[in-house]
Amino acid sequence: MDYGSYFAKTLSSLKEEGNYRVFAELERKRGAFPRAQSHGGETEKPVTIWCSNDYLGMGQHPDVLRAMHDALDRCGAGAGGTRNISGTTHDHVKLEAELADLHGKESALLFTSGYVSNWAALGTLAGRIPDCLVLSDALNHASMIEGIRHSKAERQIWKHNDLADLEAKLAQQPLDRPKLIASESVYSMDGDIAPIAEICDLADKYNAMTYLDEVHAVGLYGARGGGIADREGLMDRLTVIQGTLGKAFGVVGGYIAASADLCDFVRSFSSGFIFTTALPPAVAAGAAASVRHLKTSQTERDAHQNRVAEVRARLDALGIPHEMNPSHIIPVMVGCPVKCKYISDILMRDFGVYIQPINYPTVPKGTERLRITPSPVHSAADIDHLVAALGELWTQCELARLPMAAQ
Amino acid sequence: MDYGSYFAKTLSSLKEEGNYRVFAELERKRGAFPRAQSHGGETEKPVTIWCSNDYLGMGQHPDVLRAMHDALDRCGAGAGGTRNISGTTHDHVKLEAELADLHGKESALLFTSGYVSNWAALGTLAGRIPDCLVLSDALNHASMIEGIRHSKAERQIWKHNDLADLEAKLAQQPLDRPKLIASESVYSMDGDIAPIAEICDLADKYNAMTYLDEVHAVGLYGARGGGIADREGLMDRLTVIQGTLGKAFGVVGGYIAASADLCDFVRSFSSGFIFTTALPPAVAAGAAASVRHLKTSQTERDAHQNRVAEVRARLDALGIPHEMNPSHIIPVMVGCPVKCKYISDILMRDFGVYIQPINYPTVPKGTERLRITPSPVHSAADIDHLVAALGELWTQCELARLPMAAQ
Repeated sequence: MDYGSYFAKTLSSLKEEGNYRVFAELERKRGAFPRAQSHGGETEKPVTIWCSNDYLGMGQHPDVLRAMHDALDRCGAGAGGTRNISGTTHDHVKLEAELADLHGKESALLFTSGYVSNWAALGTLAGRIPDCLVLSDALNHASMIEGIRHSKAERQIWKHNDLADLEAKLAQQPLDRPKLIASESVYSMDGDIAPIAEICDLADKYNAMTYLDEVHAVGLYGARGGGIADREGLMDRLTVIQGTLGKAFGVVGGYIAASADLCDFVRSFSSGFIFTTALPPAVAAGAAASVRHLKTSQTERDAHQNRVAEVRARLDALGIPHEMNPSHIIPVMVGCPVKCKYISDILMRDFGVYIQPINYPTVPKGTERLRITPSPVHSAADIDHLVAALGELWTQCELARLPMAAQ
Repeated sequence: MDYGSYFAKTLSSLKEEGNYRVFAELERKRGAFPRAQSHGGETEKPVTIWCSNDYLGMGQHPDVLRAMHDALDRCGAGAGGTRNISGTTHDHVKLEAELADLHGKESALLFTSGYVSNWAALGTLAGRIPDCLVLSDALNHASMIEGIRHSKAERQIWKHNDLADLEAKLAQQPLDRPKLIASESVYSMDGDIAPIAEICDLADKYNAMTYLDEVHAVGLYGARGGGIADREGLMDRLTVIQGTLGKAFGVVGGYIAASADLCDFVRSFSSGFIFTTALPPAVAAGAAASVRHLKTSQTERDAHQNRVAEVRARLDALGIPHEMNPSHIIPVMVGCPVKCKYISDILMRDFGVYIQPINYPTVPKGTERLRITPSPVHSAADIDHLVAALGELWTQCELARLPMAAQ
């Protein structure tokens, strides 16, 4: 066995298949975001980011940064230990209270990332509850899939957002068998939204727990930014709401919000929670400031929705095809991995626009796309520039257009 | 199925068994660490932390904090995306170069935590290399165990630090079968150190890869803080060195250092690397400053070893039993979960000394302990106070003493 050759050969194959990822090296400009400096080789230049998950620009909000600077001055850099061994700081406890309140739950539990929160919470719940059956939406995120796999519980996959299929599977099970329905609210790559009320109805009917991943919704929807379930008045019907502090809240970290006992159960048994260094107090303090701000400020959410509508309308006017969905995610469909990568490269090189191409395996083959995420910090001029660039490249690449609106 | 009752009942059992964890809520005082404010109920008071993994106090080092403040001002709070989708910042790339250099490897790859780096790297390597056999030390950390389990590769556990047992297992395998020997350098709870050179000899003889977890050693050992393998001149013989930025380096995050192709392989295939928001640039910048400082400054390492020797000598003088080991970790053996918790509680309440009790399942029953981690920021007076308090409690709890040194 020649390990080195094996790695080299596998990487070559990946490159030949066109699935090798090249990371853009960026330096965000605080106060000027979505502006960034692109580093690394020939692409050293200023760019405008159009694919960030810092959906509201909260990563540069003065309240967030002030809280982080202050916590650094107060407590220093790291937490210095696991949550159990010297790593639970006052800032962690305050953030967990803020998150429990956000979702109207008794408790919340912090994890080092959204990925870890899904992996650890689903792994622990499904793994520890005897004979638990997990009913998992077909398009659930990798972190949920890995958590369910980690649990070793039986898993049944229901067709994406298909209530009839979910009900058919639930109806086959004894009423008293433990069941956990796992789904997302806003799906990241298509931007579609789950029928949460109807899922809760089925959960009630068949005595199942519900686990809702709101990572692409917290901060963005609902009167206080609690997500889609907040907007639709459904938070109290969900067993577990999972969210992230790394997207709309602009920092990093993940969490679940649920009953006090459920959170305590995961806290007590989850390897991925117990045996890891706690987040830095400054991260917890910054995230808490962001959550707090978005509980009362609707300005960012309104501006966000306006920008999204504006970009959609402008794309429609040019006949550039994008997936219609009821969220803030605009998938511009290219349908070819080579063209998708090419457009992304030229956008960066000639237009100073950065949009990472999304190819297989992140999305199915033939649905390669540019995933555009407008934000309140994109100006009208930014939108003009983006749409003009896309229009030019659409012509250059001979990509199909939809019937255009009258111009 | 009544889910609520199930959680409540399980938590009750945990409490009855004495295995329910209560977290101390602390607020570290930057500049005065190991001083902290203890929050929460009756324990609201100033305390001295004696069980932190911020082994050198780098979490309050001016260089580290300056780098973090500066990155917050420069780039804002979060990275805003996964490494692939807008989340690779200039600070991440610079930190990875710093870490590769620290370990004399071609590349390094950052993860959101040490836990995730073990889980993701071992899971990917052992899971992707066809027919890989993992030979895992019996006392490996939970994150390594979960990573190996995640890989679904065949696993054989060799007796802790037992070269004969490791060789017996290696010798049974065909030479050309892929093998990965996974171990730690400094084991967290006992503080003993693996025979790394001999493990490398066996790896060479039987054509195995080596994976060494140095989380309790990086920053602390070696002329440039590269860990035990650095001190012993063995870094180039190891296939993968894994480390953390959350202990001696004082911030948060994990990494591997290895050949460029191996890192690229894990980067390309690891779900736990790909589908998660990148660390904040300020975290990367702070960690890089810490690594950089400890590459040239020996002061902290020397002071650290002196404090450890001093505490050991003082415990010996009082006959307080502690595990003898060649590292900086001082496990004071209590051997009873109730007394261990009691001593910890009284140390906090009456002496303002915080040492978390370490009970089952973190350590085997009958080996319950107080895990003391002296650091350069503990003063001579701190040591006097700690040792006097332990002496008093040892008498009060009627715990056995070793033959004392002449007094």
